[in-house]
Amino acid sequence: MSRLANLQQEVQQTEAEMVRFVCEYTDEEQLQKSMLYSIQAGGKRIRPLLLLATVASFSKEHTRGCYQTAAALEMIHTYSLIHDDLPAMDDDDLRRGKPTNHKVYGEALAILAGDGLLTAAFELLSISEIEPTKKILLIQLLAKAAGTHGMVAGQVADMQSEHQQVPLDELMAIHKRKTGALIRFAIVAGGILANQSEGTIAYLDQFAQHLGLAFQIRDDLLDVVGTTEELGKTANRDEQLEKSTYPGLLGLEDAKLALTNEIKAAETVLEQLAAVPTFDATLLKDVCTLFQL
Amino acid sequence: MSRLANLQQEVQQTEAEMVRFVCEYTDEEQLQKSMLYSIQAGGKRIRPLLLLATVASFSKEHTRGCYQTAAALEMIHTYSLIHDDLPAMDDDDLRRGKPTNHKVYGEALAILAGDGLLTAAFELLSISEIEPTKKILLIQLLAKAAGTHGMVAGQVADMQSEHQQVPLDELMAIHKRKTGALIRFAIVAGGILANQSEGTIAYLDQFAQHLGLAFQIRDDLLDVVGTTEELGKTANRDEQLEKSTYPGLLGLEDAKLALTNEIKAAETVLEQLAAVPTFDATLLKDVCTLFQL
Repeated sequence: MSRLANLQQEVQQTEAEMVRFVCEYTDEEQLQKSMLYSIQAGGKRIRPLLLLATVASFSKEHTRGCYQTAAALEMIHTYSLIHDDLPAMDDDDLRRGKPTNHKVYGEALAILAGDGLLTAAFELLSISEIEPTKKILLIQLLAKAAGTHGMVAGQVADMQSEHQQVPLDELMAIHKRKTGALIRFAIVAGGILANQSEGTIAYLDQFAQHLGLAFQIRDDLLDVVGTTEELGKTANRDEQLEKSTYPGLLGLEDAKLALTNEIKAAETVLEQLAAVPTFDATLLKDVCTLFQL
Repeated sequence: MSRLANLQQEVQQTEAEMVRFVCEYTDEEQLQKSMLYSIQAGGKRIRPLLLLATVASFSKEHTRGCYQTAAALEMIHTYSLIHDDLPAMDDDDLRRGKPTNHKVYGEALAILAGDGLLTAAFELLSISEIEPTKKILLIQLLAKAAGTHGMVAGQVADMQSEHQQVPLDELMAIHKRKTGALIRFAIVAGGILANQSEGTIAYLDQFAQHLGLAFQIRDDLLDVVGTTEELGKTANRDEQLEKSTYPGLLGLEDAKLALTNEIKAAETVLEQLAAVPTFDATLLKDVCTLFQL
């Protein structure tokens, strides 16, 4: 089995870590069920994968702290999906091929399950097996990535850009926060957990920014070319909501080209990272292939 | 001016701390406005007051870290009000005499403003001027108090108890988490910030539990005897929602008696705390009077 396939197996530990936390630290049955429903709804676990792949690229073992950080990150991602799907937001009925959380548990419980997962992410990090200075830094970076100058701000900007064409640079600014911030956290946190220098982490951050953009362009492209069945969520949703997208602004072919270019740029940063003695680019290069169409 | 009146002035620093954070760390205008609207809607700031009063009772100065912790706590409280007022939850139009957040900014932005404030609380604590070990402990305790075995769980339990009579012990278990947990955090955090021993903090925790119960009984009583104008929120809301309340279960007079008893029990714990050399109970005794009807 390739290292990437191995890692994709190992990422399941993140789910185990989330499930364990939610089961131990939730004392209302319906709340627990609702949180577990979204946690166990599958998903690609791309953020935990990126975190663990980054740690492994520096020939570091995955400590319990790595899984806990990955689990906190995925809890934040999961909460954001629950809230995004609400009728007042994107009003989506399907997510990962299953009814969305509020369709099963009702809106009130879905809001609270989201609030619970968001809070749980910070509780899990606070009790994680990570040394204090690093732990505080990770809490700070995760809050920054998820909050009012990160994902939440991006979500607001995205919402306000509906039903109008926004220029490409604005679209990039939206996605840099809405989806990019958590992807950057995944990779930067990997560098921190692998005890890397600030210089190395700055390179990782560059790599992450290209990958984050690639992720969003690919997502936009899939929304156009994929079917609801393939996607596990409603296809052509962007068009229905009149959202600005890369294929919408650039045309299908140029959007595909933009995707290829971002992946290439990410790979170029990996080559620059080769100067770090303990770094092996193979795994992250393989991860890059997951971002192709 | 009495020490309590002085402190009530000083509590305004908490608002300043919240406003500063939201202005510096939010980069979407509408999101910022929506967050500030709820932060600046007044309110009694009872949780920051409890925190600062506890620190001051040990003849300790209020450091910047105290105000930052109080601000983080009040941000959590504020987010919970925004989400509680949503149509899918309590569906309230008035809060502190003003239209609720979603009435002014719409549901989507209100959800995101709540998410933003919740995340901001942890970001603010993570960058606060508090020494690392204490900081991590405060983050952990705040997440625990606010999350899936604290406030969020209490909110779920409260929701599920609507339209039915629940026995008194169950009602107490609901409120212990829904409102009690943050009040406990306020007072326990005060003890931690004042460098107190575990033993002293255990007494503070007992004190806080009586005060938390008193707070809820008083709130239930005010809902019955107050007018919408006095309350700044819709009166008789509990009856409309068929919520179990102390006056509903005990009758008005016995509920008043229960309130008096909880305040007395809190005062008794303060007398036990008198054994701590640096402790002066005067201020917290004055604070107890605020919990009377």
